[in-house]
Amino acid sequence: MTLTTPSALRAVQPVSPSHTRLSPLGLRESVLDSDGYWGRRNRVNAEATLWHCEHWMERAGWLGNFDAAVAGTLPESRRGREFADSEIYKLLEAMSWEYGATGDAAIDASIRSITARVAAAQEADGYLNTNFGRAGQAPRYTDIEWGHELYNYGHLMQAAVARYRTSGPDALFDVAKRVADHVCDTFGDDGIQTVCGHPEIELGLMEFYRLTQDEKYLHQAQLFVERRGHGLLADIEWGRSYYQDDMPVREATVFRGHAVRALYLAAAAVDLAVETGDTELLATLETQWSNTIAARTYLTGGMGSHHQDEAFGEDFVLPSDRAYCETCAGVASVMLSWRLLLATGKSRYADLIERTLFNVVATSPAPDGRSFFYSNTLHQRAEGVAVASDVQVPRASSSLRAPWFDVSCCPTNVSRTLASLGCYLATVDTSGLQLHQYAQCSIRAALPDGRPVGLDVSTRYPVEEEIRITITEAPTDEWTLSLRVPAWATDASLEQAGQVAQIAPGSVSVTRVFSQGETLILRLPLTPRFTRADARIDAISGSVALERGPLVLCLESIDLPGATHVDQVVVDESVAPRIVDGRTVIVARIDSPDRQVWPYGTEVSEVATADDALTDDALTDVALIPYYSWANRGPSTMRVWLRTA
Amino acid sequence: MTLTTPSALRAVQPVSPSHTRLSPLGLRESVLDSDGYWGRRNRVNAEATLWHCEHWMERAGWLGNFDAAVAGTLPESRRGREFADSEIYKLLEAMSWEYGATGDAAIDASIRSITARVAAAQEADGYLNTNFGRAGQAPRYTDIEWGHELYNYGHLMQAAVARYRTSGPDALFDVAKRVADHVCDTFGDDGIQTVCGHPEIELGLMEFYRLTQDEKYLHQAQLFVERRGHGLLADIEWGRSYYQDDMPVREATVFRGHAVRALYLAAAAVDLAVETGDTELLATLETQWSNTIAARTYLTGGMGSHHQDEAFGEDFVLPSDRAYCETCAGVASVMLSWRLLLATGKSRYADLIERTLFNVVATSPAPDGRSFFYSNTLHQRAEGVAVASDVQVPRASSSLRAPWFDVSCCPTNVSRTLASLGCYLATVDTSGLQLHQYAQCSIRAALPDGRPVGLDVSTRYPVEEEIRITITEAPTDEWTLSLRVPAWATDASLEQAGQVAQIAPGSVSVTRVFSQGETLILRLPLTPRFTRADARIDAISGSVALERGPLVLCLESIDLPGATHVDQVVVDESVAPRIVDGRTVIVARIDSPDRQVWPYGTEVSEVATADDALTDDALTDVALIPYYSWANRGPSTMRVWLRTA
Repeated sequence: MTLTTPSALRAVQPVSPSHTRLSPLGLRESVLDSDGYWGRRNRVNAEATLWHCEHWMERAGWLGNFDAAVAGTLPESRRGREFADSEIYKLLEAMSWEYGATGDAAIDASIRSITARVAAAQEADGYLNTNFGRAGQAPRYTDIEWGHELYNYGHLMQAAVARYRTSGPDALFDVAKRVADHVCDTFGDDGIQTVCGHPEIELGLMEFYRLTQDEKYLHQAQLFVERRGHGLLADIEWGRSYYQDDMPVREATVFRGHAVRALYLAAAAVDLAVETGDTELLATLETQWSNTIAARTYLTGGMGSHHQDEAFGEDFVLPSDRAYCETCAGVASVMLSWRLLLATGKSRYADLIERTLFNVVATSPAPDGRSFFYSNTLHQRAEGVAVASDVQVPRASSSLRAPWFDVSCCPTNVSRTLASLGCYLATVDTSGLQLHQYAQCSIRAALPDGRPVGLDVSTRYPVEEEIRITITEAPTDEWTLSLRVPAWATDASLEQAGQVAQIAPGSVSVTRVFSQGETLILRLPLTPRFTRADARIDAISGSVALERGPLVLCLESIDLPGATHVDQVVVDESVAPRIVDGRTVIVARIDSPDRQVWPYGTEVSEVATADDALTDDALTDVALIPYYSWANRGPSTMRVWLRTA
Repeated sequence: MTLTTPSALRAVQPVSPSHTRLSPLGLRESVLDSDGYWGRRNRVNAEATLWHCEHWMERAGWLGNFDAAVAGTLPESRRGREFADSEIYKLLEAMSWEYGATGDAAIDASIRSITARVAAAQEADGYLNTNFGRAGQAPRYTDIEWGHELYNYGHLMQAAVARYRTSGPDALFDVAKRVADHVCDTFGDDGIQTVCGHPEIELGLMEFYRLTQDEKYLHQAQLFVERRGHGLLADIEWGRSYYQDDMPVREATVFRGHAVRALYLAAAAVDLAVETGDTELLATLETQWSNTIAARTYLTGGMGSHHQDEAFGEDFVLPSDRAYCETCAGVASVMLSWRLLLATGKSRYADLIERTLFNVVATSPAPDGRSFFYSNTLHQRAEGVAVASDVQVPRASSSLRAPWFDVSCCPTNVSRTLASLGCYLATVDTSGLQLHQYAQCSIRAALPDGRPVGLDVSTRYPVEEEIRITITEAPTDEWTLSLRVPAWATDASLEQAGQVAQIAPGSVSVTRVFSQGETLILRLPLTPRFTRADARIDAISGSVALERGPLVLCLESIDLPGATHVDQVVVDESVAPRIVDGRTVIVARIDSPDRQVWPYGTEVSEVATADDALTDDALTDVALIPYYSWANRGPSTMRVWLRTA
C-alpha cells in the first residue's frame, strides 16, 4: 500500500489496523465543521468538557495521587477508586486528539504538565500505579479481579498512542512503553498466568503494537485474549461471566456479563483477528454482535440491562424503567462496531454506530458539557432531584446529569470519543471513499493508490433530511463514492446532476468520474415513525416508541399540561405522527392518575384508569423531543416507550 | 381482661400485644394437622430444615465463631458475614417455637447446647458479637451502617422471647436481657444518638418489653423508631432511603428502600403504635401499606423489585424477569400484615398474608426442606444450573434452590415462620373467634371472657374448595364465629345446618349458639381465573396470569413439548381455563423461537414470531402448576405472566 499522505498524518486516528476491508481516515483528513451537530458537540467538548474533567480530577485528588506517590505520602493521601489513575489517562487521550485536530497550545501545555506528574510516579521497573505496591498498600497484582492495574495500563497506552499520533514521541510514549514492556515481562509466556478483571489492556497493547510494530505487544495482547474464559479469575456472586472468564472468546455466542468489559474485550479480539488474519475469530465476533443486537440491545443502542452488575441481561430482558445503558457501554459499542465496520465493510455496523452516537453518547453530556448521565434509562418514573454543579455524586443515584461521579468513567469516555469523532465519518478502500456518518464536515483524503479525494458535507441532519456532498477534489478518472443508507431510511433518494433516484437501505455506490465542484444530494426522509418491539421484550410489549431518522424520541413531562405524569399518556396509534414547528406531535389520551387498591384483577376494567375507548373529546396533541435532549429543563418524568390503548 | 387460659400458655406466640382489636392465639391453642398443606410444611421444617440449618451453621463456621470468641482465636478464625451471629439466633427462635409445639427433647437439647456456646461469648458488660471489639477487629459500633450489631441483638431478643414463652426463663433469656440492658445503656437518651443500618432491634425490644413489661425496653424501641429518618446514617450510593433514614416513619407515605429493612421497621412501628395507643402512627402505617400494595407489590405478594439494593422500586416498577422478591421480604411482609390485622381487624391484611404465605414463603423451600430460593423471580428466561446439595452459593446467583448461601438469611426466616405458623390462623375478640387462614388444624381457645371455644378445621384447601369447620367445644350461649372470605372469592358460600348462603368477600360472621359437633362448610370456589394488571406496570402490560384460589400459577417449560421455551407460548384468552386431572389447563399457540436481526420495527409483522392470528390448528393445551412448586424438576424456564395475542 503506497500512500501519498504522510503516514504520520494518516495515522491521526484511534484505530489503525494494518489491513482491513476499509481503511480509516485521520483527524486531519476528516474535519468536523463547528456549525454542524457533531461539530458543535466537538467544540463544547474542547472548550468545556476537557477543562471540566481536568478541574474535577484535580479537585477529587486523582491527579494529586501521582504527586503523593512522589512525595511518599501514599497510601494515606490516596483519593478515589482503584481505577482513578485511568481517568487521568483517558483525559490525556481526549486532550491528545483535540490537540491533534486543532494544535491548541493550552491543551498541549496541560498534556505536558499532566504527563510530567504521571511520569514522576513511575517506578524503576516500569510499574506505575498509585494504589498498590507501597508500604501500607496491597502488593502489586494481588487483587487481579478488582485492582484494575492492567486496565489502567490499557488506557495509558491508548493515551500514549493518541499523543504519539498527534504530536510524535514524547515523555508519555516513554512512560507507556516502559509500562508495556513491564507487562510483557510480568504477564508473558513465563509470567503470571492471569488476566485483568476488567478487559482494556488488550486494546491498549493492540494499538501499541500497531504504533510500534513490535510484535511482542501483539503477542501479549493475544495471550490476554486467549487466556480469558478459562476460570483464571475468582468466582463471584454474579458468576465469572461478569468479567467474561466463563468461556473463551472463541466459544461464546453472545455478549454477556458486565457490558463495558464484554465490549472492550470484543473490540480487542477484533483487533487481534484482523492483525493475525484470523477469519474464524472475526466470524465468531460478528455472530456475538448479531446475537446481542437481536435480543440484548435497547432501541437507543444502549447496552446492559442490570444495575446490579452493570451487565447484559438474558435475551429480551430489556426493561425501560431502570434500563442501565451505561454511557461507557455506548462508547465501547461504538469502538467495537467501528472495528467490525473496518474489518468487514458492512453497513449494519455503521448503522449501530449512528444509533448509539445520537442516542447514548449524545445523551450523556448536558449541552454545556459540564454534567453527564452515567446510566441512560428509557423510562423515568419519579422526578429526579437536580444535582448542583459542584457536587460529586455516586455513579447512578441521580436521574439527572451530575458534574462528577465517585466512579467517573463516563465523562472522559465521552470526551475522548467526541474529540476523535471526525475519524468515524468516512473510510477509503481501493475503489474509493465511503461516507458512513452524515456530519457537516470537510474531507480531504487519499485513496490507497494515492489519488486525492476531497468533499464537503453540508447538512443540518438529523434535523433536516438533505445532505449535500460537494466534490472539492477528485481524480480525473473513475472512482467510487459510497454512501450509507440507514436501515430505517426506506424512502431515501440520491440526486446527481438533477437526476433523482430512489435508493434502498444499505449503501449506494456511485462509480464514475466526478467533477470538482459538483454536488450530490442525499435525502434521508425524516418522517417520524411508530416503532414496535419483539413481543418477547415483555417490558415494552404493546408499547410504541417514536423515531425520527436516527433519533429516538421521548415524551418528557415538562411538555405535558400541569402535573401530568408521562405514565398517564396513552397513544392513539391510528393517527400518524406529524411535525409541528419542527417537533414531532402525536395524538394521545391523558388517563387519570388514580390507582386501584390492588393493581391486579380478573377484569381489565378493574384496572383501567380511565375510559377504555379513545374518545375524541379526550384526545390531545402531545409533543415529543429527541431522547438525547431530555432532562435539560429540570426534574421530570420521561418515557421512550409509550402506552397504547 | 381475665383469661381462664393460663397466660404463660396463651403467650406461646411471636407477637403478644397488650391490647389490640384482635388477640392472637398461641401455638398450643391453634395446632396444625400434619396431614394438611401447612401441617406438612411445618413437619418438614421440624424434621429437616431445622437440622439442615444447624448442620450448615456448624459447617460454615458461624456457630464456631462463638467458640472462637471464647478461645481467643478471633478475628483470625471468624467465618461468615457481619450478620452471621443473627442466623444462630433465628435458628434458636425457630427451634424454640417447634419445641413449644411438640416438646421434642432433641430440639430442647440443641437449644441448650447452642445457647451455652452463645452465652460463653458474652462480655462482662453484656456486649455480644463475634465480629467487633477485639484486637484486630473494628471497635464496637464503629460501623453502624453495615455492622449489624444491633440487628443481631434484635434477633437474639426474638429468640429469647420464643424460648421464654415456650419453656420459661433460662440462660438464653439471661443473655438477651443483659444485651437489652446494654443496648439501653449505650443507645439511650444520653447514649449514642444513632440507629442500626438494618432495622430489627426495634422488633426485638418491643417484644422483649411485652414479655418483661419493663418500660425501658419500650422506650428504647421508641427512641430507635423515632430517631430514624433524620439522616443519622451515612449517605450512600442508593441514598439514605436504603435504610429508611431519608424521612421519619411518621412522614413517609409508602415503603421504600431495602424491602426487608422497610418491613421490619414498619412492623416495629405498628408494635409501638399499639403499645403507646398512637392511632395517628398506626393510620400512617396503614397508608404506607396501602400505597405499597397498590403499586409496589408483585402478584405473588413478593416485595422488592431491585437486585442491586434489594429494594422496592418506584411505583409500578414490577418487572417479572429479575423480580427480586426476597424470601425474607415475604416473611417480613407477613410479620407486618399480621400486626396490622391484630391492630385493626381488617381482612385485607389476612388476604395479603395468605397470598404471601402460599406464593412466597411456600415457594422458597424445596419439598424436602433442604434447599431454598433466596429471591423469587416471576419469569425465568434462561434455564438455571442445578445446585449440588453440598454447595454454599452466593445469595442470588442461582435460578434453582440452593442448600445454603453466603448470605443465608432466608432459610432460618422461613423456618421460624413455619415453626410458628399455627399462631397466624385465628384470633379472638370479645365477640368470638375469627378464622383468617384455612389450614387443616385444631383450635381450642378461650374467649376474652373465659368461655372456651374449640373447632376442628378439615380441608384440602387450596387443592379443594370445601373447608369443614366442626365445633368441638362451644359456650352454651351466643358467640360469633367470623370467617375470612378472600377478596378473590366472589362466589363463596357458607353451609350451616343444610342451608347454603352466598357470602361476599371480606368476612362472614355467624352469631348464635353453636352446638358441639356441628359442622359449617365454607366453600371458596377454586375456578382458575385469568388475572390482568394495571397498565402502568409496563413490564406485564397486556399479559395475563392465572390464579386459582389463593395460588398464583405458572408455566414451566418442563410441561411443554420438546425444547419449547415459555416465551414462545401465547395464550388464547377467549378460552376459559379449565381443570384437567387436577391441573389448570389453558389454550395457547406455540410461537417460533426465531428472532429478527433487530427486534424493533415499524410494522408489528416485522417482529411477530409466527402467525399473528391464533389459528385453530396451531392451538394446543398447556398445563400450569402452582408457582410455589416450580423448579422442583430440574432446570427450566418459567413464567407467571403469559403473553397474549
